Amino acid sequence: MEIDARVEAWASLQLLPRVSARTLVTLLKLFGGPAEVLAATPAMLTKVVPGEIAATIARGPDPAALALTLAWLREPGHSLIAWDDAAYPRALLTITDPPPTLFFHGRSELLNRPALAIVGSRNATAQGRETAEAFAGALSTAGLTIVSGLALGIDAAAHRGGLTGAGSSVAVIGTGIDRVYPAANRDLTHRLAVDGGLLSEFALGTPPLPANFPRRNRLISGLARGVLVIEATLASGSLITARFAGEQNRDVFAIPGSIHSPFSKGGHRLIKEGAKLVETAQDVLEELGMGSSGSLPAPALPTAHDGDTARVLTALGYDPAGIDTLMSRCGLPVDVVSVALVELELAGEVASLPGGLYQRLR
Amino acid sequence: MEIDARVEAWASLQLLPRVSARTLVTLLKLFGGPAEVLAATPAMLTKVVPGEIAATIARGPDPAALALTLAWLREPGHSLIAWDDAAYPRALLTITDPPPTLFFHGRSELLNRPALAIVGSRNATAQGRETAEAFAGALSTAGLTIVSGLALGIDAAAHRGGLTGAGSSVAVIGTGIDRVYPAANRDLTHRLAVDGGLLSEFALGTPPLPANFPRRNRLISGLARGVLVIEATLASGSLITARFAGEQNRDVFAIPGSIHSPFSKGGHRLIKEGAKLVETAQDVLEELGMGSSGSLPAPALPTAHDGDTARVLTALGYDPAGIDTLMSRCGLPVDVVSVALVELELAGEVASLPGGLYQRLR
Repeated sequence: MEIDARVEAWASLQLLPRVSARTLVTLLKLFGGPAEVLAATPAMLTKVVPGEIAATIARGPDPAALALTLAWLREPGHSLIAWDDAAYPRALLTITDPPPTLFFHGRSELLNRPALAIVGSRNATAQGRETAEAFAGALSTAGLTIVSGLALGIDAAAHRGGLTGAGSSVAVIGTGIDRVYPAANRDLTHRLAVDGGLLSEFALGTPPLPANFPRRNRLISGLARGVLVIEATLASGSLITARFAGEQNRDVFAIPGSIHSPFSKGGHRLIKEGAKLVETAQDVLEELGMGSSGSLPAPALPTAHDGDTARVLTALGYDPAGIDTLMSRCGLPVDVVSVALVELELAGEVASLPGGLYQRLR
Repeated sequence: MEIDARVEAWASLQLLPRVSARTLVTLLKLFGGPAEVLAATPAMLTKVVPGEIAATIARGPDPAALALTLAWLREPGHSLIAWDDAAYPRALLTITDPPPTLFFHGRSELLNRPALAIVGSRNATAQGRETAEAFAGALSTAGLTIVSGLALGIDAAAHRGGLTGAGSSVAVIGTGIDRVYPAANRDLTHRLAVDGGLLSEFALGTPPLPANFPRRNRLISGLARGVLVIEATLASGSLITARFAGEQNRDVFAIPGSIHSPFSKGGHRLIKEGAKLVETAQDVLEELGMGSSGSLPAPALPTAHDGDTARVLTALGYDPAGIDTLMSRCGLPVDVVSVALVELELAGEVASLPGGLYQRLR
């Protein structure tokens, strides 16, 4: 991608240790944008964040790390997608802790398509891998982008199946986006980078750290309308992804199996807890309201809003905008615009972003 | 059993073709008991039933068939159990169409124990039969009487497992109780007659008629607190039993399996429709409120009733009684006793039987 001041500022903030997403929200609201946060003096910063964090921000990122990041970003197909980008996955804006920035390699239009996560055990059986690939192929052909975690076993099979259909496949990885992990998935990684997508919230060069994988799972479920679990032991990280899905109001689907197989126990526990038992890809499509034709569902009709609120929604369009922009577009005073935005947020049609921006969701 | 006038009258009524249970209820209410119905003149009968049925009753049963039935009943361990018998399964009184009479061979005390039905396909896999036998053994050991239909495959395995535990096993058969069907289950039939029970609502000598088996299934579910389906194709009669269980407010349990096996499709359909997925016998016990100890649940405490109602309930005891008997036992007038009985019926503590009798349910 082309590097402008905004992208460089986001890349710099991304590299600052211990500046949490929550802190960043506070700073962006106060200062307006990533470049403004970085330009703030320590005296201004200490008014809102602890001195240690203010010093970290004022010091800025490690120049070598920033140079590495910017060099990676300059490559074709590579990008940094921040909260206030139109390409940012709108589905992630509905979870409690969306990452401020994502590194992405591939077809970024896939990030705002209807998606289904397919996950399961790394050491799955051959039958389980075949099932994952077959379901992913059928569901991708029906228009769903298949999201998974690029692990061996079920994840890799799901990506392979997803790549065969129109929906393609996106891998959310737990390392820096410049690392291939596990090495056995090198070819698959390259195919995803060309025909699908690779996504990471971690800084370039981040090695495989055990703590990062469960955390990454919230993005796998967050990107998707539902999570399908195929062959998971009770110790599988898939159950963490399914738990995130439940918290994020996503559907949870599980494929049953023999009561004597340890690889069925995870799915069976989920079904007992309310997950939907599925036997065919068609079962998943029906539960998602994608019907028997396999076509995409009609988008939800926007709720009817009265005059001013409708004007604000129309003025917002599909790119993020701030209150000032909306006031000038609509010619309405600040209190009217604010009330309209609250109403739209409550109706689930608009999300508020850091930096005082608003993003239309549908 | 010993044959008295009442038993002979019930056996005679049982043999009359086209006198339905519904007709019998009407007649018993009007005339008071089975012997009184048989003694009624055609003129009296035609006031309440069509002339053809009145003639059938007045003509009485075929003498040879009655002689055969009474000869069978005189054998040790054989009995006829009618609506107004204390041995009649109380669980059956809660279904919409309990048979007026049951032929029984075995330990009749098993008919009023907590029971679980286990059913499945005749041509089940070896694994399925092992699962059925293992579950039945564990659940019988925990105190549940295992009810099934004496078919080959899952049914036979469930009976065999049930016979190994304290709960034992009862077969509800779709032929006359003097027939062994299928012949391959001869040994199992003999073991059930000694250590468990054989039950049939059909006249002696009734051959295996296709229409009788689905009808019989309502008794399998009706006798039980729940129905566990192990290996059932979509064409299996087990799904009929599970449907009856739903209509009768019994729990439905199903064991999952591979999505590629036709023997899992029945159970999976049931789970999709709300049946509970079970992986272990313990799962069944927990759903039935029989906890981790495997012991029987404490009986439900009777609802507290006020003075007169409580007196009527106490006076009723656990054998059927009529209003006149209750009036004399309590010293209360007919309207007070009637109101109390309605209250007790609504509370689910008493069922009204044909012939103006009432039966305490718990």
